Amino acid sequence: MIRVGLIQMRMVEDSKANWAEAEARMVEAAAKGANLVVLPELFLTPYFCQKEDPALFDLAETIPGPTTQKLSGLAKKLGIVVVGSLFEKRAPGIYHNTAVVLEKDGSLSGIYRKMHIPHDPLFYEKYYFTPGDLGFKSFATSVGKIGVLICWDQWFPEAARATALSGAQILVYPTAIGWHPPEKDAYGEAQREAWELSQRAHALANGVFVASVNRVGFEANGQGEGKSGLEFWGNSFVSDPFARVLVRASTHATEVQVVECDLAKIEDTRRNWPFLRDRRVDSYENVSKRWAD
Amino acid sequence: MIRVGLIQMRMVEDSKANWAEAEARMVEAAAKGANLVVLPELFLTPYFCQKEDPALFDLAETIPGPTTQKLSGLAKKLGIVVVGSLFEKRAPGIYHNTAVVLEKDGSLSGIYRKMHIPHDPLFYEKYYFTPGDLGFKSFATSVGKIGVLICWDQWFPEAARATALSGAQILVYPTAIGWHPPEKDAYGEAQREAWELSQRAHALANGVFVASVNRVGFEANGQGEGKSGLEFWGNSFVSDPFARVLVRASTHATEVQVVECDLAKIEDTRRNWPFLRDRRVDSYENVSKRWAD
Repeated sequence: MIRVGLIQMRMVEDSKANWAEAEARMVEAAAKGANLVVLPELFLTPYFCQKEDPALFDLAETIPGPTTQKLSGLAKKLGIVVVGSLFEKRAPGIYHNTAVVLEKDGSLSGIYRKMHIPHDPLFYEKYYFTPGDLGFKSFATSVGKIGVLICWDQWFPEAARATALSGAQILVYPTAIGWHPPEKDAYGEAQREAWELSQRAHALANGVFVASVNRVGFEANGQGEGKSGLEFWGNSFVSDPFARVLVRASTHATEVQVVECDLAKIEDTRRNWPFLRDRRVDSYENVSKRWAD
Repeated sequence: MIRVGLIQMRMVEDSKANWAEAEARMVEAAAKGANLVVLPELFLTPYFCQKEDPALFDLAETIPGPTTQKLSGLAKKLGIVVVGSLFEKRAPGIYHNTAVVLEKDGSLSGIYRKMHIPHDPLFYEKYYFTPGDLGFKSFATSVGKIGVLICWDQWFPEAARATALSGAQILVYPTAIGWHPPEKDAYGEAQREAWELSQRAHALANGVFVASVNRVGFEANGQGEGKSGLEFWGNSFVSDPFARVLVRASTHATEVQVVECDLAKIEDTRRNWPFLRDRRVDSYENVSKRWAD
């Protein structure tokens, strides 16, 4: 049984304050029985990719490095598996958006480097992050086999599929997604619904659990007029392999949700909906093309 | 602009009656402005795959053959594109679950042979249908580029992806899906919702329209006690590229729905959610594996 703890947080400018908040919430999740906790994407900082500024590469750190160490210490102290998300400095000029998986004994189970990198208004990630080069994989931990993907990856069925085929029982998505206030009235609810739907579909197609952990709060980008910035929409959730939402957090509040994921449901769902049996693996070659022209 | 007509039907034993019903409903759809109509899966017969009976192979016919001819004549008479679904006799011992695409001038644009074949309680399709060997493709017609997939295909993101990458603007799914009455109370609504969600996710991931056309009515399988059989759940629908449901038919009634699909929404959605730009086509090789062990 995985008892996954979702740490939905509001970030501030001060990284020390963000760490203190994350730590307190991880302690809370463990107290509520979580044996796996997932932090939001880039939990140590505001979502700095709203601007393109070379000085912001100073936020990056090595892995292992100070934050990996702190997460490791906390994982060991609390006796839980932890998935954290960091701005990784790999080498001068090579930076990644990376998740670390820490075992309950504090050891580093492995890292995942975000494969799909967005670059759209106020999500200028291609400026900062070299696309991941470790591929799609899952991590064998004391609580089960955990597939780790990050935010923009959640729109790509191939990422979920490849990770599930590596044995993942749960896909976890540290996330930073939000509304552009000027378009929220017209598109906001449809955007949030599409985001959840896409990930529930991954759970269903692959017969796995999915846990997505988002941040909350408005973050101004310090450029443009007044409300220029992003309103992160929370709504962290867990889906079971049948695409049923087991829990959905609020839109605006910092909160900790702990959800039981009964891994026997994976076998049961896959027996009753045997998609993996029937895949036409002889015929998917065009999926690896940009466009089949 | 594609104006897609969904022909949601109840089938009876008599194939001539099913044809007459389909013909009347296609005339109705054309009168309502449809320039593309889609029939349910295997619309000429009850869903015979509820049993395994060698005599039922007599239901199959060649393509072209009598039903293709009749569909062709009607397409020409009404001046519309038609997608029909047939039990195809290709050669003695080789039968397929096949869709035909007829142009508005009555010519055969092409055929699609169902690639993913189910085989589960009362859906004994592997007994009848050789898996398709034509791959995933779309058909250039006078109303747009149409991708055709069939029923069980709708659970496989790879099928939708490969078809969309071949240029499809709309994916159409002739379908025969229903409830097992004994499990309907416990799982019925979750099953129907999962079915719709899976296909809306294909629309979203690929920036295409999706139209799914199901049958309605309870069909006894003539075996077992009393209510042994399937209750087809209707709920034919169209999703836009943003995963918004444009129309959803009823659960129990024969009905014709005609829906406008503004193809400009494809470009617009793909610009704002540029998933196709960011796909990691260098890294999807495991998607073509059965299991990545």
